[in-house]
Amino acid sequence: MYNLQELAQFIDAKLIGDADVKVSSVASAISAKNNQLTYVVNQKYKSDLVSTQAGVVILNHDLLKDCPTNALVVDDVYLAFAKITHYFKKEVTPANGIHSSAKTGQAIIAQNCTIGKEVVIGRNTTISSNTVIEDGVTIGDNTYIHPNVTILQGCSIGDNVVVSPGAVIGSEGFGNARDNQNKWHTIAHLGNVVIGNNVTIGANTTIDRGTLEDTQIHNGVRLDNLIHIAHNVIIGQDTAIAANTGIAGSTILGKRCMIGGMVGIVGHLNICDDVIVNAKSTVDKDIKTPGMYTGILPLMPHKQWQNVGLWLVKLDKIVKYLNIKLKNLKD
Amino acid sequence: MYNLQELAQFIDAKLIGDADVKVSSVASAISAKNNQLTYVVNQKYKSDLVSTQAGVVILNHDLLKDCPTNALVVDDVYLAFAKITHYFKKEVTPANGIHSSAKTGQAIIAQNCTIGKEVVIGRNTTISSNTVIEDGVTIGDNTYIHPNVTILQGCSIGDNVVVSPGAVIGSEGFGNARDNQNKWHTIAHLGNVVIGNNVTIGANTTIDRGTLEDTQIHNGVRLDNLIHIAHNVIIGQDTAIAANTGIAGSTILGKRCMIGGMVGIVGHLNICDDVIVNAKSTVDKDIKTPGMYTGILPLMPHKQWQNVGLWLVKLDKIVKYLNIKLKNLKD
Amino acid sequence: MYNLQELAQFIDAKLIGDADVKVSSVASAISAKNNQLTYVVNQKYKSDLVSTQAGVVILNHDLLKDCPTNALVVDDVYLAFAKITHYFKKEVTPANGIHSSAKTGQAIIAQNCTIGKEVVIGRNTTISSNTVIEDGVTIGDNTYIHPNVTILQGCSIGDNVVVSPGAVIGSEGFGNARDNQNKWHTIAHLGNVVIGNNVTIGANTTIDRGTLEDTQIHNGVRLDNLIHIAHNVIIGQDTAIAANTGIAGSTILGKRCMIGGMVGIVGHLNICDDVIVNAKSTVDKDIKTPGMYTGILPLMPHKQWQNVGLWLVKLDKIVKYLNIKLKNLKD
Repeated sequence: MYNLQELAQFIDAKLIGDADVKVSSVASAISAKNNQLTYVVNQKYKSDLVSTQAGVVILNHDLLKDCPTNALVVDDVYLAFAKITHYFKKEVTPANGIHSSAKTGQAIIAQNCTIGKEVVIGRNTTISSNTVIEDGVTIGDNTYIHPNVTILQGCSIGDNVVVSPGAVIGSEGFGNARDNQNKWHTIAHLGNVVIGNNVTIGANTTIDRGTLEDTQIHNGVRLDNLIHIAHNVIIGQDTAIAANTGIAGSTILGKRCMIGGMVGIVGHLNICDDVIVNAKSTVDKDIKTPGMYTGILPLMPHKQWQNVGLWLVKLDKIVKYLNIKLKNLKD
Repeated sequence: MYNLQELAQFIDAKLIGDADVKVSSVASAISAKNNQLTYVVNQKYKSDLVSTQAGVVILNHDLLKDCPTNALVVDDVYLAFAKITHYFKKEVTPANGIHSSAKTGQAIIAQNCTIGKEVVIGRNTTISSNTVIEDGVTIGDNTYIHPNVTILQGCSIGDNVVVSPGAVIGSEGFGNARDNQNKWHTIAHLGNVVIGNNVTIGANTTIDRGTLEDTQIHNGVRLDNLIHIAHNVIIGQDTAIAANTGIAGSTILGKRCMIGGMVGIVGHLNICDDVIVNAKSTVDKDIKTPGMYTGILPLMPHKQWQNVGLWLVKLDKIVKYLNIKLKNLKD
Repeated sequence: MYNLQELAQFIDAKLIGDADVKVSSVASAISAKNNQLTYVVNQKYKSDLVSTQAGVVILNHDLLKDCPTNALVVDDVYLAFAKITHYFKKEVTPANGIHSSAKTGQAIIAQNCTIGKEVVIGRNTTISSNTVIEDGVTIGDNTYIHPNVTILQGCSIGDNVVVSPGAVIGSEGFGNARDNQNKWHTIAHLGNVVIGNNVTIGANTTIDRGTLEDTQIHNGVRLDNLIHIAHNVIIGQDTAIAANTGIAGSTILGKRCMIGGMVGIVGHLNICDDVIVNAKSTVDKDIKTPGMYTGILPLMPHKQWQNVGLWLVKLDKIVKYLNIKLKNLKD
């Protein structure tokens, strides 16, 4: 818990409002309460600002007149937000064995595991050798965690889940703010990963925690090996995703989707229910209609590809040229 | 070992035949013996059914008349198969240190390793720190297993093999049956991974076990980092595969192939010997002729790509339009 | 340290020169000193040979006349080089706990870690549970190494670095020489990985050591999850790379680049400063001009893609056909 005076100092901001107000955590402008800090990066989010219930808002000078609460005024809002997140990150105490406050009485825990503070593990759940579970994690019943898995602080996993070897759950999201000298400043990710029931997670798959809200894997989801799920992604119930696929930040996948292997889905998209994306495709826009989608260049003998490739990169010029030719001929 | 009465109950099937017959494992219709169970999903595999030696077959009512042995009749064969595999999966006892039944006398085993029941490790083989080797694994001579590796139950590795850090060998295959409510049911994979001699496996690469038969990596194969090899894949002798590549289930690669980085090879394909696939290509059909193959869109400055992309997605329409124009002009 | 007599025997070479000369390590022809061995694969590198300061050079008979120093003459230079590297590889002693020669007094080290010989870890640096750090690694101050990480022998990491769970630093490069029977011979990679200050490395990302020189990750770099960085890659200051991307051997990336997710960059390229490559693109040639680049096929409904794809693979034929038609019409 910090008062606004302290927060202003942390990020070198001008405080407009009550220096003694205290905030205990960070939330989005829409969901923040009066004991929380939020930020509004630009005019695009003005309506969120106007109605926010937050105790204090990091913002630019030009948004100050629309701020209904205390303000921390800075030049670069996103950078200030990145810096301040680190003050709200929970520390992890490097654990030794099973922490005395962990509730694991009905679980089977193999050797060389590390179980952190206040971890709760359910009935008939197995934690295999050399797996590390950090502070505050909760795991349900009848779940099987394979060897060499890492589950980071505060994440939760439901019942009847399988986590395959080498998987990482709750790694930091890839969110960074750039300063005016092009240096990156890491955002400390304060959300968790929440995994429902009857989910399977493949070997060496990584799921990042959310920035402020949680990354969510809903009931019945199937994730294959070596998949990357970025911060704040939501994967709808009973969706299955094949190996090597990556989903960038804040994208929402519907229910019962089937995503092929090595598909790349860019960030901030909405994919509706019952979508099939074929292997190796790139999804670079929202999908609003159920059905099957593809975007790959067919395989060719290399010599053929060299010929085709020559024209591919000037397809626009070819089409225009031919249209002109046709027009000339017609005239 | 279960009798047919029990099996019928497990999957809610109608038993046609001798309830007292016992089966001890599961095999494909072609290879199953009279103490094994098999399944036939539809008419396409009728010839396998007619000649099967299996003790019992899971099938639909309409295939019953062609069944030469005991039958377990269900509506959804694949789903029933998925459910029944779990009864044949061997349990892994969470191990503590080196199990007393393991034969590791001539190997070098670092600290914090877990070596399961009846593991056999050869002469002059090194198992590095924090590696987990489950029950029944066999490893040959002069092999080097790096730290933080996981080798799951029953897999075998030959002589002079290198397994890099974080690799996972024998993870569950990504096979799931969907029920009529679109819920996924995991298939328990009963095959193993069999790795020959003189093979190298890269860091954080994952190799899934087979469904009924084994996933096979033949002698002399080179696998780079972060590769995904799915269930029942067979990689022929002296084939080399670069990083980030994924090979989907049941695909067979020939000998001496060179597969570039981040190539995606879809499932159930046959790739002949001496094939080179360039980096980032998608292989979506059998390759029957040795040679070099490619399928990528060349890199362009983004503005150029935007122009080209506009036409790419309507290439079919453009070609048709131009042909019509040409025809009209001719007339 | 070996004398030339011994080295000639190791690779079955003809020694031209002084059998008693001793060399202690391997270097490139340009940088090698008189106590080092080098190799020159063909006429293309003749100028490097002519000016080399190496104690001995592995080369073909036809380059012998241009060799200013001792020579080891073989038929297949690259294969001989691959074989001889193994004699210069440092052995790693499987460690137990924290080696007595390690300097870790001001670091926080969790349980089940392995810290090798002569490791140096700085002030206020955390090594989390089940992480393995091999001989000779150095790590700076205020660095945070997450659980289940592997850092292999001789690598170095700067200050204020974060290494996420499951990352592997210093795995062997994917370099192999093929003999005349198409068998692969692994090159032992003798370089290290050198990571600067203020770098973050994502979960399950792998960074290979260099062949002779080091793989370099400069200050301020941001690497997301499941990235593959091959041997001898150099990543310039403040460059950020998103998840699932792979960079092949010896490629040099400039400063302040932003590389999207699942991008593939082939080997031996030079990418200049301030380049943006969009997600899923393939980079297959040098980039000499700052700016944004893309190379993906746009996503389409599958039926549309089938139509477009039909024409894509014969684009060269279509263009030629239309040009001929146009010409005929004109005449």
